[in-house]
Amino acid sequence: MNSSKPYIIRALHEWISDNNCTPLVLVSSKHQGVQIPTGIAKDGKVVLNISYGATKNLQLIEEGVMFDARFSGVSENIFVPMGSILAIYARENGQGMMFGENDDSPEPPKTDKKDKPKILTDNKKPTNIKKTNKKSFLKVVK
Amino acid sequence: MNSSKPYIIRALHEWISDNNCTPLVLVSSKHQGVQIPTGIAKDGKVVLNISYGATKNLQLIEEGVMFDARFSGVSENIFVPMGSILAIYARENGQGMMFGENDDSPEPPKTDKKDKPKILTDNKKPTNIKKTNKKSFLKVVK
Repeated sequence: MNSSKPYIIRALHEWISDNNCTPLVLVSSKHQGVQIPTGIAKDGKVVLNISYGATKNLQLIEEGVMFDARFSGVSENIFVPMGSILAIYARENGQGMMFGENDDSPEPPKTDKKDKPKILTDNKKPTNIKKTNKKSFLKVVK
Repeated sequence: MNSSKPYIIRALHEWISDNNCTPLVLVSSKHQGVQIPTGIAKDGKVVLNISYGATKNLQLIEEGVMFDARFSGVSENIFVPMGSILAIYARENGQGMMFGENDDSPEPPKTDKKDKPKILTDNKKPTNIKKTNKKSFLKVVK
């Protein structure tokens, strides 16, 4: 079977947009094939706004996410391969899903407290995934 | 935000169908609002084929999955609420995703070996989800 990751990314993009929130992707900027303006990545990561409002010609295809967007007033062609996408989540509340780098297996979505943020794993212990700092990096924490 | 589960279910239904496989849902038959023919559930569970070929008027909506299908030659209206759906997966290889009962948080997808079946959890140990018997019940195992 092909990877389920593009399907999941499209689904969560739609979910976040339907909730009037802003879909962001966390991208590994050093991943092969990433096309982004120089200077916007920090520590090998970049967060891109992939809302319909912030982009033009947005395409969420099997190979990756592509769109046009303005950076410092200049329109740029952006492409990030599917394998470079580490997470997709809503700017407003951090809800979304993390992925391992180069891994097609999505991790469970982040949820807020009222949504019962537990994931049954092999040891049946609840796992919470929380946003750990203001730069929107996602990390699995207890 | 509303639940991401309907979005994930639609995405995985599309993914499985695009791969020419048969999407099945594992349903908790005792969940409130489940409308299925009497006698088809076993031990409180039922597996339903929700492929386009096996159903008519299939709708994957926010409230649940509804369709018409023939059981013992009789056309029946089926409805299973979103909360009753425990898993969606492909009949042919068991790939898909599990959900907790009454839980809107999807678990990570099942993957086969070549897809690197690991999920990073809080303890960073790999977790495999495997089909454990021929009746298509899914279980989290080490």
